Amino acid sequence: MHAFIVPIRSLQDHTPLPGITVGDIGPKMDFEYMDNGFLQLDHVRVPRENMLSRFTQVLPDGTYIRLGTAQSNYFAMVETRVKLLLFEILPSLQKACVIAIRYSVVRRQSKLRPSDPEAKILDYQTQQHKLFPQLAAAYALHFLANSVLEFFNNSYSAILGRDFSLLPELHALSSGIKAMVSDFCSQGTELCRRACGGHGYSRLSGLPSLVTRVTASCTYEGENTVLYLQVARFLVKSYMQAQASPVSTSQRSLPQSVAYLITPGLDRCPAQRAADFLHPELYTMAWAHVAVRLIKDSVHQLQTLLQSGADKHEAWNQTTVIHLQAAKAHSYYVSVKSFAEALEKLEDEPAIRQALKRLCDLYALHGILSNAGDFLHDGFLSGAQVDVARTAYLDLLPLIRKDAISLTDAFDFTDQCLNSALGCYDGNVYERLFHWVQKSPTNAQGNPAYEKYIRPLLQSWRSKL
Amino acid sequence: MHAFIVPIRSLQDHTPLPGITVGDIGPKMDFEYMDNGFLQLDHVRVPRENMLSRFTQVLPDGTYIRLGTAQSNYFAMVETRVKLLLFEILPSLQKACVIAIRYSVVRRQSKLRPSDPEAKILDYQTQQHKLFPQLAAAYALHFLANSVLEFFNNSYSAILGRDFSLLPELHALSSGIKAMVSDFCSQGTELCRRACGGHGYSRLSGLPSLVTRVTASCTYEGENTVLYLQVARFLVKSYMQAQASPVSTSQRSLPQSVAYLITPGLDRCPAQRAADFLHPELYTMAWAHVAVRLIKDSVHQLQTLLQSGADKHEAWNQTTVIHLQAAKAHSYYVSVKSFAEALEKLEDEPAIRQALKRLCDLYALHGILSNAGDFLHDGFLSGAQVDVARTAYLDLLPLIRKDAISLTDAFDFTDQCLNSALGCYDGNVYERLFHWVQKSPTNAQGNPAYEKYIRPLLQSWRSKL
Repeated sequence: MHAFIVPIRSLQDHTPLPGITVGDIGPKMDFEYMDNGFLQLDHVRVPRENMLSRFTQVLPDGTYIRLGTAQSNYFAMVETRVKLLLFEILPSLQKACVIAIRYSVVRRQSKLRPSDPEAKILDYQTQQHKLFPQLAAAYALHFLANSVLEFFNNSYSAILGRDFSLLPELHALSSGIKAMVSDFCSQGTELCRRACGGHGYSRLSGLPSLVTRVTASCTYEGENTVLYLQVARFLVKSYMQAQASPVSTSQRSLPQSVAYLITPGLDRCPAQRAADFLHPELYTMAWAHVAVRLIKDSVHQLQTLLQSGADKHEAWNQTTVIHLQAAKAHSYYVSVKSFAEALEKLEDEPAIRQALKRLCDLYALHGILSNAGDFLHDGFLSGAQVDVARTAYLDLLPLIRKDAISLTDAFDFTDQCLNSALGCYDGNVYERLFHWVQKSPTNAQGNPAYEKYIRPLLQSWRSKL
Repeated sequence: MHAFIVPIRSLQDHTPLPGITVGDIGPKMDFEYMDNGFLQLDHVRVPRENMLSRFTQVLPDGTYIRLGTAQSNYFAMVETRVKLLLFEILPSLQKACVIAIRYSVVRRQSKLRPSDPEAKILDYQTQQHKLFPQLAAAYALHFLANSVLEFFNNSYSAILGRDFSLLPELHALSSGIKAMVSDFCSQGTELCRRACGGHGYSRLSGLPSLVTRVTASCTYEGENTVLYLQVARFLVKSYMQAQASPVSTSQRSLPQSVAYLITPGLDRCPAQRAADFLHPELYTMAWAHVAVRLIKDSVHQLQTLLQSGADKHEAWNQTTVIHLQAAKAHSYYVSVKSFAEALEKLEDEPAIRQALKRLCDLYALHGILSNAGDFLHDGFLSGAQVDVARTAYLDLLPLIRKDAISLTDAFDFTDQCLNSALGCYDGNVYERLFHWVQKSPTNAQGNPAYEKYIRPLLQSWRSKL
């Protein structure tokens, strides 16, 4: 692909220039103001100097030359992907958490006990169960995206020194986290929106636009299913590599993010009491165990089909659902590991570390409980242990409740940036909602828009009564 | 609650009448044209004849009388809920399935084999895995909603004969299916939308408005978490009742939809081969087993807390996450059972029965695989059996592929009703998309809207260049 700047319309009357057919592709979901278009160029000559020549050039004599490496374009794409995560997708989930959690300590509904006043909705277990896993994910994905950014920078330094060995891993890592972060953020922002009840449908809550915009990120910059399958190809390849070479060799040569494929683990989880589940090394190991098993299973299914005579493309297609599951488990493992590593760096900040560790515990346990079948499948966890993990999970909710507001304030979004009547720092939800609603043209008699558009309409209707 | 018709604005100049404060509540997510408002009446006298007097009346001397039964109002609410399911929520999922599946046999992308032409995207396993469970759910929920409508009619006849005994069950059934149907339809329409890639973001696909409108149904007419917890209360009560009375008595007195709480089942699933999982009686029994276990567990957790001294309101709040899980499993069981019963009525239509039975199998198995932890927890299924169930599930996908278009045509939506460039019956997706796009004002030079709004705007911008 090469990029050019091409004039498409006349500067005199804005009509398309000769040979050019151009138009808008029509209304889009919450991207109405983005002018995505269609374009056809028929015998349109583009001057040589209109080419964007960072990576490739055409010389006046027609010679085509490539500058830098073949990977430079690819790096630009990965950079876009990582920045999209950090500056667009992830902040959407963080904002949605801030809005929904702040609203949930203002909004009261029903009573916990008949003799009590109406309770803050954040004191209901179901509301904590909706919102705190999203808050935990917002932090988990923050540490994950930053660790991938660091890996990206290291790979870029390496490539400048002509070392391309990190490229396959960078591709797998950036594909997997793009898919996981956009999936989790889409689901998470929608859960936050619904957790605000009817007010989550008001655009003044700020939530509808957060949801619809982040949802689009599941499709652009790489469709998520396609991306997960690229991770899966990397996992299959790494697993085969690990099997083919003696342990000592493969340990050195396996990319760092899949080194766990040959790290010996336990066949049974040793945790017995709820407190046993609150150890990062325990649940990181548990996630590694499940990811390895699923990767192994996906390779086994693929090889069984190949041995039964299926051609490799057919065999791949018939196992993609299984590969998807393995790629998701691997990505979850990577995210738990990066959160646990971030905690280790907080040794000098015990209070912050404690608050974040609870989120890390919750993130890992919520993932285990949501995918309990994967942990029970080979007896790594027993049913009784899953119940204990559930107790550990439920016991974390009221503890996180105490820090919930501080943990959302810590994202440090200004009221202006949140643009939400429900999520303002001062908690004056209803006053602000009522105040903002007054600006609606239908409510503003004396407002020029009301006088110009609404009043004549009402008068014309009235005259027909 | 009593309903009145009250004049709120002057017929002369549309200003609010004395004592009335009225306004719009502001912009809403995809419900912009619904004029939800706020209203305050301060010393406004409402004439007696303005009261809607179907269920209650006020006589000229001030006497207040109740007509009919106290349950009549409640019945009207349940009727609204069931009709909302049948005529608004469920058709949204069905339409989304029609659009996404039709589009997926037109759209081609990538190659299954390098030597082949680009493949129809519906031939990818991952696309079938996205869409066919939604199609199966669209049928499952159709039979479910109809069975609840039938139960509603029977209950209404009974109540006219002063028999109120079916009311608690009707409440639980209608609450549970409202929550389940709206949850599944919200998720399902969004999955269908994303399965159309970038085109799923075009409003011309018809999908964005289906998604956002059905999503609202998770909150209105009863918020889904609240509804599931009402089901849970009914389940706890029924379970306690089953425990308290001898089997012969409770079997007679337990409401029909929870009769399975005392039907003896198997502790281990007998299925060994993939074909063994394709029996409605087998997977209905499997779902009953899991629902009973989860209900039992939720009652046990509640009682343990009560015995340890927690007051009943606190004990309820601390077990609501567990109760939610039980209520969802019960609702899934009810839906599998009603689908299986619908198949039995199709004995004289073997071809239709076969096509629908595959959907019923897929629906039940998809539910089992998505909740595998619940089936593995007590060893009802082993890990090896889950793998066999997965094989049965994956093997169904290419079989359903053959009937997929007929199964969507069978909903019999007209093109006008679908209002989708992607989902038209003739499959001319790209021609229609291009044709519809031409109607966009920005594309229509000579179009009055273009001449009136767009051209002056462009000219004014140009003059500033």
